[in-house]
Amino acid sequence: MRNIKLTIEYDGTNYHGWQSQINAVAIQDVIEDAIKKLTGEACKLTGSSRTDVGVHALGQVANFFTNSNIPSDRFSYALNSVLPEDIVIKWSEEVDKDFHSRYSSKGKKYVYCINNSRFPSALFRKRTFYVARELNINLMKEAAVFLIGKHDFSAFRASGSSVKSSVRTIHSIEIFKKDESIDIVVAGDGFLYNMVRIISGTLIEIGFGKRTAGEMLQIIEGRDRNKAGKTAPAQGLYLLEVYY
Amino acid sequence: MRNIKLTIEYDGTNYHGWQSQINAVAIQDVIEDAIKKLTGEACKLTGSSRTDVGVHALGQVANFFTNSNIPSDRFSYALNSVLPEDIVIKWSEEVDKDFHSRYSSKGKKYVYCINNSRFPSALFRKRTFYVARELNINLMKEAAVFLIGKHDFSAFRASGSSVKSSVRTIHSIEIFKKDESIDIVVAGDGFLYNMVRIISGTLIEIGFGKRTAGEMLQIIEGRDRNKAGKTAPAQGLYLLEVYY
Repeated sequence: MRNIKLTIEYDGTNYHGWQSQINAVAIQDVIEDAIKKLTGEACKLTGSSRTDVGVHALGQVANFFTNSNIPSDRFSYALNSVLPEDIVIKWSEEVDKDFHSRYSSKGKKYVYCINNSRFPSALFRKRTFYVARELNINLMKEAAVFLIGKHDFSAFRASGSSVKSSVRTIHSIEIFKKDESIDIVVAGDGFLYNMVRIISGTLIEIGFGKRTAGEMLQIIEGRDRNKAGKTAPAQGLYLLEVYY
Repeated sequence: MRNIKLTIEYDGTNYHGWQSQINAVAIQDVIEDAIKKLTGEACKLTGSSRTDVGVHALGQVANFFTNSNIPSDRFSYALNSVLPEDIVIKWSEEVDKDFHSRYSSKGKKYVYCINNSRFPSALFRKRTFYVARELNINLMKEAAVFLIGKHDFSAFRASGSSVKSSVRTIHSIEIFKKDESIDIVVAGDGFLYNMVRIISGTLIEIGFGKRTAGEMLQIIEGRDRNKAGKTAPAQGLYLLEVYY
């Protein structure tokens, strides 16, 4: 029995998030069905991150066990031939039996993409969050510095998660502006439910000048979800990479 | 009566091209309906370019005449409030009575976007042409030089157009590579039916090494559509800008 690791890109627009649920099509279901179609085996796919409805991925990681004789590196090609075109396996390889996409992960990188222009974009409407009001990038960068390091991120955690500790380490936050696009790139050892979207929403309110950059420190220290900004919408978020 | 010029971005994926036709929804129809909804006037919208099914635009230009009292610069906001989100009016302004989006145009700029990677992209599948085989950019650039200037472009013209002369001037062709994306940016005084897509298809065959860069000159001089490359698919093409 081999343990196969997949690296996956998907457009989250037409799915009910990563994780299987009743009465809705999740990305996990679609890939499990594709594996079954190829191998004939019922399969349980373990994903590194349960991305929400509308969230995209350029580097989601998942693994599954198989007795089939498809070569490990050919699973990507074989799966792509049966998957819909909004889900693409970019890489497949055999890994150790004890590799677990979620528990073995050492960290993740996300990007949150903002379209900060006069009008919304017809082409990137499902790929970015449209913000009409001008954002001050310098204030956002100044505030982001407070998030780096090991903190209790209770203020940036949506309810509905069963994880016990709210302590996480953010390794880096970089904010890039190119023309009317603003990208917030965040890497850390792990993220709480909706954490990147709440951080992005808070940085946006600071970019408006509605809050000062220094308030970020108070929000972290307050550990109160109500003190942080709004949760930025799903369509701007991409899971970029999972580290092992 | 005012003549209003619109600058338009659209995602061509869900429409049957720019121009109105029987039994299919065209972008022109959708905008004409939106204008009628706002002004109560039946309206004839004139577009600068009849983009094909699946072709996108970042800067299509169109104009129409109106007796309404909506301020010229507010048409963009008013129309966006009634248009579907895959069509966005980026600018509206009053222009001279004799301004005609197509006949007054002095030139246009297009970009053709290629995804040249190991696997197709889930996120950009309707936004780029996926080419698996590695393209040699230097050969493409070498070949592109032959296209610059005033030529009879009969070899790069699809049948089905009623335009008499095939002589056009290409002002510039630039080819950019960033990671796995290759963009072909072409500016000229005007383009024949499918001209940018046939040029792109021919440059791709040269990039494969299937044809030499020097063959481009022979193709131009041969004036025979059968000697040029395949027509590259619509979803990679964007109308970027129209010059007046």
